[in-house]
Amino acid sequence: MKPEILKELITTNDSKIIFLIMDGLGGLPMGKHADTELETASTPILDQFATEGICGALDPVSPGITPGSGPGHLALFGYDPLEFLIGRGVLSALGVDFTLTGRDVAARLNFCTLDKEGKVADRRAGRIPTETNQRLCEKIRANVKLSDGIEYFLETESEHRAVLVLRGDKLGGDINDTDPQKIGLPPREPVGGDENSRRTVKYVKEFLSQVRTLLKDEHPANMLLARGFARFDPLPTMEERYGLKSLAIAQYPMYRGLGRLVGMDIAPKPPTYEAMWQTLKENWKKYDFFFIHFKKTDSTGEDGDYEKKVHVIEEIDRWCGQLRELNPAVLVVTGDHSTPSALKNHSWHPVPVLLWSQYSRPDIVTRFGERDCHKGAIGRMATKHLIMLALANALRLKKFGA
Amino acid sequence: MKPEILKELITTNDSKIIFLIMDGLGGLPMGKHADTELETASTPILDQFATEGICGALDPVSPGITPGSGPGHLALFGYDPLEFLIGRGVLSALGVDFTLTGRDVAARLNFCTLDKEGKVADRRAGRIPTETNQRLCEKIRANVKLSDGIEYFLETESEHRAVLVLRGDKLGGDINDTDPQKIGLPPREPVGGDENSRRTVKYVKEFLSQVRTLLKDEHPANMLLARGFARFDPLPTMEERYGLKSLAIAQYPMYRGLGRLVGMDIAPKPPTYEAMWQTLKENWKKYDFFFIHFKKTDSTGEDGDYEKKVHVIEEIDRWCGQLRELNPAVLVVTGDHSTPSALKNHSWHPVPVLLWSQYSRPDIVTRFGERDCHKGAIGRMATKHLIMLALANALRLKKFGA
Repeated sequence: MKPEILKELITTNDSKIIFLIMDGLGGLPMGKHADTELETASTPILDQFATEGICGALDPVSPGITPGSGPGHLALFGYDPLEFLIGRGVLSALGVDFTLTGRDVAARLNFCTLDKEGKVADRRAGRIPTETNQRLCEKIRANVKLSDGIEYFLETESEHRAVLVLRGDKLGGDINDTDPQKIGLPPREPVGGDENSRRTVKYVKEFLSQVRTLLKDEHPANMLLARGFARFDPLPTMEERYGLKSLAIAQYPMYRGLGRLVGMDIAPKPPTYEAMWQTLKENWKKYDFFFIHFKKTDSTGEDGDYEKKVHVIEEIDRWCGQLRELNPAVLVVTGDHSTPSALKNHSWHPVPVLLWSQYSRPDIVTRFGERDCHKGAIGRMATKHLIMLALANALRLKKFGA
Repeated sequence: MKPEILKELITTNDSKIIFLIMDGLGGLPMGKHADTELETASTPILDQFATEGICGALDPVSPGITPGSGPGHLALFGYDPLEFLIGRGVLSALGVDFTLTGRDVAARLNFCTLDKEGKVADRRAGRIPTETNQRLCEKIRANVKLSDGIEYFLETESEHRAVLVLRGDKLGGDINDTDPQKIGLPPREPVGGDENSRRTVKYVKEFLSQVRTLLKDEHPANMLLARGFARFDPLPTMEERYGLKSLAIAQYPMYRGLGRLVGMDIAPKPPTYEAMWQTLKENWKKYDFFFIHFKKTDSTGEDGDYEKKVHVIEEIDRWCGQLRELNPAVLVVTGDHSTPSALKNHSWHPVPVLLWSQYSRPDIVTRFGERDCHKGAIGRMATKHLIMLALANALRLKKFGA
């Protein structure tokens, strides 16, 4: 939908929309289990929503494409993930809860070990403990300064991983990785692909050479490798695009960051599922759209723990029971991608979805599961259309043309 | 489908294609009715076509978008409604059976009441009777003349509504509404957004100022407000795109107009369903493609009259019984959008479709209804692809590539 057409269609009202996202929801049969995790789970609450609403199967990007968390969520928020490309460095900054501005270039960093000849001996510096990472980052922040008033921010991620953000005018992100990807080679020199990126390379080099001097007596982490340089170009917000004042409720920083990327307000980290519910209730009147993110369906899938993923789904099903008392106009339950325990990884399989609203035309689906969803009225659809379907069911879209 | 690719694929033969359109066909459950209007209606004829053919659910524009009649029909004719945008003034001209040319700019007019200070006291002049509208239009046509040989056409729509068409070289339609949308304000001055539109504003002002003088002693309709200015850019015709010599059979002017928009020949208004059948039979040998439009499924839906919509569908079902004697190559039955009685309005819900031909691969659907259609072989599809499916089933498309 072109922004100028979208703009003509949007209207606002007091309706509330919930997008409940179970990360990596879609699954596969595994071993003795002939059904998927979702099909095996006992989900009476979601089955009832499915019975009253409509179901389908979503392709986050397009058939066959396995999405990362970034594209998966952008599609859920209605941003075509093939049009809005988010660089790896930017995603890492989101993942440490860092608030980027339009003057920022971000990159992922690895602490590494250089040998006496300056060649990479260990690309991950023996996976140093996070505490060592934090101590080294503090040391760097206290000692390394850039010229020309360029600011930098250095944030520990975990183990050997950190994030670098450079802030200044006219910076560019078209810069190669300094990580040679192999041991026995020296770090690569950064080179800029356009004028702003060549300007930026100057500060990257300043940063890295000061770090090298500063850490020369540390062991095993005596240097940093950089990759995934990316400029952050702010996206149009959910409020600008859809007129939706939006709140993200998520336990993990990456997903709060993805909400922030599209201009959502971010609730403080809720320590428990109960806290997620309290946050939702307390903010119910203040927002139009609620992005509620559950992570464990993905992490149990990545662990290959079929039984635990089933258990997590059942736990979230029970959590959904209380949603009816809020009387949302639209409830959407789906995932950002599939993470079958059988694959221990994100996958390309379409993601089951249910949409419940007063105005959804009933279909024949009475159970929330992959096979059942394929019989539903949503059909098989690109995820990017989902938000439009939700807006329509909330009576927030005007007629197109006369 | 890009025009240059389409052109390579088209071939012609003697096959006949019927598109039978029930306006606003799709529905919703309502009150005591747990099924939609189409599901409730007894449709043995259409059920038999559905059994022999294939079914599905169509999105006229894209999921969630509620289409007007213009985009809904363009999609049926295979013109992407997000690419071929038809201005409101142009649609209104089509709606009064006016034949536009490539030198025309059209606008919608409202007779209104101005107070003594020249401010709008009633934007609809108390919804004057259509007869008053006709008398005033006649008076204007007899007295108002434009300079530089610019022609104008003024046509009564109904009540306070009329249509203005300006005809001349290099006219433009990028002109704001003069309707201030509120009472207590004077009409807005028209301003052109580009060179041709600025030229056109001169004649709009000439027209409106003469009208103001001429009607100053009329009451309550003493002025006109204009909105929806739009230039008419002729579309490629159905014959140019698909090699289909096409006939529109429709009782309402808007739909004859939409047929005319894509170069169809237009049968004279058939007063009854029986006359529609006679028109179809008499023209059977002369055309390749027949667009047959039934309006009452939409108007009963807009009235919220569930029972009457059911009745109209049953009436059209019986009408379809006679189609087999013509032996069409392809029969398509669908709508341009949904108009559920429960919503009294066009809606975003997908539209049930059946396509019957000698070569359609049978699916499991044996009833023509929304829930059944979702099980069909067409799946959920954008309406714009439907014409290609019809052409294929009429063996009118060559192989793409070797």
